[in-house]
Amino acid sequence: MEEYDLIIVGSGPAGYAAGIYATRFNMKTILIGKESGGQVSESYRIENYPGFSMINGMDLATKFKEHAESLGVETMDFLEVAEIEKTENGFNVKTEDDIGYFGRTLIFATGAKKRKLGLLNEDKFRGRGVSYCATCDGVFFKDKTVSVIGGGDSAVASALLLSEYAKKVYLIYRREKKKMRAMPVWIERAENNKKIEMILESVPKELKGEEKLESVILDQNGKNIEIKLDGLFIEIGTDPESELAKKLGVSVDAKEYIKVNEDMSTNVPKVFAAGDVTTGSNMLAQIVTACAEGAIAAESAYKYLKKRGI
Amino acid sequence: MEEYDLIIVGSGPAGYAAGIYATRFNMKTILIGKESGGQVSESYRIENYPGFSMINGMDLATKFKEHAESLGVETMDFLEVAEIEKTENGFNVKTEDDIGYFGRTLIFATGAKKRKLGLLNEDKFRGRGVSYCATCDGVFFKDKTVSVIGGGDSAVASALLLSEYAKKVYLIYRREKKKMRAMPVWIERAENNKKIEMILESVPKELKGEEKLESVILDQNGKNIEIKLDGLFIEIGTDPESELAKKLGVSVDAKEYIKVNEDMSTNVPKVFAAGDVTTGSNMLAQIVTACAEGAIAAESAYKYLKKRGI
Repeated sequence: MEEYDLIIVGSGPAGYAAGIYATRFNMKTILIGKESGGQVSESYRIENYPGFSMINGMDLATKFKEHAESLGVETMDFLEVAEIEKTENGFNVKTEDDIGYFGRTLIFATGAKKRKLGLLNEDKFRGRGVSYCATCDGVFFKDKTVSVIGGGDSAVASALLLSEYAKKVYLIYRREKKKMRAMPVWIERAENNKKIEMILESVPKELKGEEKLESVILDQNGKNIEIKLDGLFIEIGTDPESELAKKLGVSVDAKEYIKVNEDMSTNVPKVFAAGDVTTGSNMLAQIVTACAEGAIAAESAYKYLKKRGI
Repeated sequence: MEEYDLIIVGSGPAGYAAGIYATRFNMKTILIGKESGGQVSESYRIENYPGFSMINGMDLATKFKEHAESLGVETMDFLEVAEIEKTENGFNVKTEDDIGYFGRTLIFATGAKKRKLGLLNEDKFRGRGVSYCATCDGVFFKDKTVSVIGGGDSAVASALLLSEYAKKVYLIYRREKKKMRAMPVWIERAENNKKIEMILESVPKELKGEEKLESVILDQNGKNIEIKLDGLFIEIGTDPESELAKKLGVSVDAKEYIKVNEDMSTNVPKVFAAGDVTTGSNMLAQIVTACAEGAIAAESAYKYLKKRGI
């Protein structure tokens, strides 16, 4: 079995950045990811990764990957990790094609997935009106009409942020107002905001449009209503991909995010984590914060081995 | 006096990234910095900022600045902040040219300065053999001979890291071994490393070379010795630029770094901090970690105002 100082699971910004830094520490490193680029590669346009005023998500993901590879990181994309087994000195990582890799340390950079509504056309309109990140895409909706779906903190905070740009923001929630999980202070701010209108007890049923999203049909207590809009922000939750880590005994929080210390270590020795799958960066899940966590995790893995003379 | 939602003090990566994110939150933002680009602009070549396989420091600093400006951040470079006064609703920031700016929130991104030996030619050889960051520049010294000056954790850890690349590493310390402040485990690793040779009770006196650094003259108990080398890493400490923050009552640690919480807030309400001047990112002072801290600080400043309906 091929031996590595570090195995990185996940091929988004956190994983590639961890790889870039691991090579600076001269660690023999392999990165295994089931996609290439993670959520980034699905982004239509990115304006908030410092250094690139505007770049397509796929292009940025490619840059990250090429950067890591140019420094010597082995990358295995579109390959899923099937199983990780703890051994005395590290971990045996087995991929779905039944090949094994031994790693002295591990970094989980497996990311998170935004929950989808599950409607027809949702994927088709992604980047054409449908978004899962107001911080990323809100600025593209200046003086437009948008909706946010959801009732948690992210949904209400997104509505507030969108009100800075859009001329009208509908906040659509499936139940009554008192069932909203968002902090009261956020809900109060939304109610006091003249641009924001709450549409309660309404469930999205259909997304309509030709080339891009034009309206959403809601089921409001059995009655159909149509909301014309330019953008729809879906904020109904995020699922961190922490299954593999949990099987190794890594602690997660109530929402399944991997709990990390300041050095990106987890509760399991030699196991580190970085990016959207973690509780790090004050939960600001952005490309640049994922990269920073990757860098910190790589340094911590290096120091772990070095202090023990490995 | 012109009013801003956010005033950023400092014009390195942390400051520009904070500006980029502040505009995403539609905050009216000004950035005031006494240099442009901070330490980055002094870096000869950068290979570890994810997305750029190789870029000159000045070029990357310019990209950060243009990115922030393109999104609407006002920037004032080469202008020093003279004084900051707390008011009821925010801060009056006065620059050295006696102009005042009002900010509802503040981010200190004032950076840190590596201590210099203070030798003739030290600046001339910077990027031509003299470096202050093994993590950044170590990889450029494959199979070369290098020295590290210092006896603290950074110095010994740098020597260990450099041993991964260089064929020979001299660790030069001005006093006897037992006076070294580095953790015993680091010192032990260095002693057990065949490439590392400690030169004790020796003080650098002169840097010699034509176009680039070729040797260093040490004063070893009154006797001159010359060490031929390709690279000299100066690790004798870092001074965070936290004076202005301290005057506002911001808490710092024993080494004068601004103490930050996970959201980059400080002990003083409405005052945030980011980058090398802080205790954040597990003290891994890198461009990408500074940027991430800037993004988090900007979001926190935004949330602070938003929760209060400001």
